[in-house]
Amino acid sequence: MARFITIGERIHCISPTIKKAMEEMNPEPILKRAKEQIACGATYLDVNIGPAEKNGVELMQWAVQLIQSECNNIPLCLDTANLKAIEAGIAVYNRANGKPIVNSADAGDRLDRIDLAAANDAICIALCAKQGIPSNNDERMEYCQTMLERGMELGMDPSDLWFDPLFLVIKGNQDKQMDVLEFIKQLSDMGFNSTGGLSNVSNMAPNEIRPIMDSVTVAMAMYNGLTSAIVNPCDKRLMETIKTADIIKNEMMYADSYLDL
Amino acid sequence: MARFITIGERIHCISPTIKKAMEEMNPEPILKRAKEQIACGATYLDVNIGPAEKNGVELMQWAVQLIQSECNNIPLCLDTANLKAIEAGIAVYNRANGKPIVNSADAGDRLDRIDLAAANDAICIALCAKQGIPSNNDERMEYCQTMLERGMELGMDPSDLWFDPLFLVIKGNQDKQMDVLEFIKQLSDMGFNSTGGLSNVSNMAPNEIRPIMDSVTVAMAMYNGLTSAIVNPCDKRLMETIKTADIIKNEMMYADSYLDL
Repeated sequence: MARFITIGERIHCISPTIKKAMEEMNPEPILKRAKEQIACGATYLDVNIGPAEKNGVELMQWAVQLIQSECNNIPLCLDTANLKAIEAGIAVYNRANGKPIVNSADAGDRLDRIDLAAANDAICIALCAKQGIPSNNDERMEYCQTMLERGMELGMDPSDLWFDPLFLVIKGNQDKQMDVLEFIKQLSDMGFNSTGGLSNVSNMAPNEIRPIMDSVTVAMAMYNGLTSAIVNPCDKRLMETIKTADIIKNEMMYADSYLDL
Repeated sequence: MARFITIGERIHCISPTIKKAMEEMNPEPILKRAKEQIACGATYLDVNIGPAEKNGVELMQWAVQLIQSECNNIPLCLDTANLKAIEAGIAVYNRANGKPIVNSADAGDRLDRIDLAAANDAICIALCAKQGIPSNNDERMEYCQTMLERGMELGMDPSDLWFDPLFLVIKGNQDKQMDVLEFIKQLSDMGFNSTGGLSNVSNMAPNEIRPIMDSVTVAMAMYNGLTSAIVNPCDKRLMETIKTADIIKNEMMYADSYLDL
């Protein structure tokens, strides 16, 4: 049994509250979001500090130590364009509850994120893209292979590469949704782990529809073997769907109280 | 584009209100349930009059004419153990909005329902079972073939056999859910239509969990090609899921208002 892994997306400098807290190195707003997401069932938390070109090293170390020390060493996904900041974050990271995740490599300019993950025994999210949106699954698979080879050359275990198929927004890509889901099946059939920014699908849809679209997408993706996703764990409908998909897949024992577990 | 077909299950003599209305031939409670289900988006309505050994012919004809005349000839699924009652119902049935459905044949004692459907140019729900629950998908496929051969010998179009994989209750069959879903894919790959009593899955689960389990199941089943289901169309979450799955499968054009269509 391997339950689905959720990576909580809400500590992100795109949020004005979090941006301000990071600028001021004010712990409270960040810890509040961390604890909310953990209470909702997040397995990992993403920590996105933005480009952080100037103070990335200091900021990431502060955030990692703050969140882990106050939240029972919750495992984290380190998210910034600043490579040195990720490396610095890993240096102070506590692995008691899981390896750090590097977010994210691709098959183009960001291929070196795999080197960073390999050198630091970290998991690496590996976006099956190079420049822009891959036009089909052959292209996705080509990029997947590029990243897989790079990781294996550097001694990574393939299970530490979490391939991201690149979920596409329905608006404009309605005819490509089944392809993305089929690609997840291809990854699963090859035994790979996978993840992705699920809510891309419902981007620009009305707010009341988004939890519905995200839930249906995750149910289909989990059926096809998706092993994790970057999500808002405070989306109740989505989390209910994820737990129920684990039940249907027999990855978690059924009990009448399973939604509370 | 072929949107998913929902068969509303709520005109069923297991309901005390409907049972009483059928005994008294009182139109109001039956029409109320019919209109509610249509308002919620049901494509077909199931009309289950029970065994109806004595007055089945009269009762089914009355119910069919009542519902169709008051509800714009909504297509119906005729559901009773009484074969003569189904035949009588078809005799007065208006096909303007779809063929009648015979509910249901199996590969055992109820194989003759296929004969009835074939003789009356009706659709037939074909339960992939013989005695009790099929133990695996090979058995399901064997029963499917038996019924397919019978129908084709009698000149039926295979698309008029809607194969039912037999959804199983999670409690006691948690480890078999993926098999049922895989069987739906087998049916779909062969080009067959399919249907089933979806809510079997959540039978005996707490009431607040049932719409969640049914929704996740239908999303996975629709991904695998399920073409219809017998459902409670007044289950809002389930209907939202079905419409959204049609969007993701590109069987219905996306519009921000698609849930209202």
